[in-house]
Amino acid sequence: MKRTSYADMPCPLAQALEVVGEWWSLLILREAFFGVRQFGEFERRLGIAKNVLSRRLKDLVEAGVMERKPSTEDARQVEYRLTAQGKDLLPVLIALSQWGERWIYGGEAPRRFANRHSGAAVAPIEIRDVDGQRLGLRDISLSESHAGPKEASADA
Amino acid sequence: MKRTSYADMPCPLAQALEVVGEWWSLLILREAFFGVRQFGEFERRLGIAKNVLSRRLKDLVEAGVMERKPSTEDARQVEYRLTAQGKDLLPVLIALSQWGERWIYGGEAPRRFANRHSGAAVAPIEIRDVDGQRLGLRDISLSESHAGPKEASADA
Repeated sequence: MKRTSYADMPCPLAQALEVVGEWWSLLILREAFFGVRQFGEFERRLGIAKNVLSRRLKDLVEAGVMERKPSTEDARQVEYRLTAQGKDLLPVLIALSQWGERWIYGGEAPRRFANRHSGAAVAPIEIRDVDGQRLGLRDISLSESHAGPKEASADA
Repeated sequence: MKRTSYADMPCPLAQALEVVGEWWSLLILREAFFGVRQFGEFERRLGIAKNVLSRRLKDLVEAGVMERKPSTEDARQVEYRLTAQGKDLLPVLIALSQWGERWIYGGEAPRRFANRHSGAAVAPIEIRDVDGQRLGLRDISLSESHAGPKEASADA
């Protein structure tokens, strides 16, 4: 399949996908969130081909989402760890996961993001206004700051 | 590039990516959220090849995220519209877009999701507990309901 790039699209969603939109990237990040750090462990847990894993990790490091450094336990080993930029992707992972639970599993997935203290699933991600008020689909527009206050309403 | 499938992974995130993780899918959905319904309009606004767009729309319809029906204005024309399952992806799009704005644009993107009444950007997506309390990275675990209460802590 032809490799495409969103790099020239002036849209933060397209730019985010340019970084994490490759097949496997978000699952590698999922593993990293739960403490996986070594190449072989990513490989084993994901069942991913070495060359693909290698390329994805390289891309994630170049994008600033992960960093590659010597293991704290054994300096001859290399570890891949999330940067602050990578950790900030957790809401994306949770939003996708909750959607999968609702629509693919009908509300009861075999794995879910939970409060580690209580064990309760985290609340469904909601869209809120700056004052904390919930926003629905029809309250939301895509505003373009480039060409002045041109707006398209979310009215699908 | 070899086509991979996450279909056999018992994880709602993997299953969600199986539906919307293909290159282009989320950008097609972005356009649909803002009222695009016709093939030619998706094609023009995204600059996407006809054959790729055609396959993606077909996949999204098969997955239940979009539906294909006669245009309300001209029954000879076909429209693609978001289903409830598709509309429920808005938090995912917003979370990704906000991440792109913070990390790629340094806080000021040319387009952003906003409250259409006030014009203010929607609040950053937050992870909350069932009681509304905010949860941080270290409060979150991945719980597996399959094999009993086995838990891995989000401690990256």
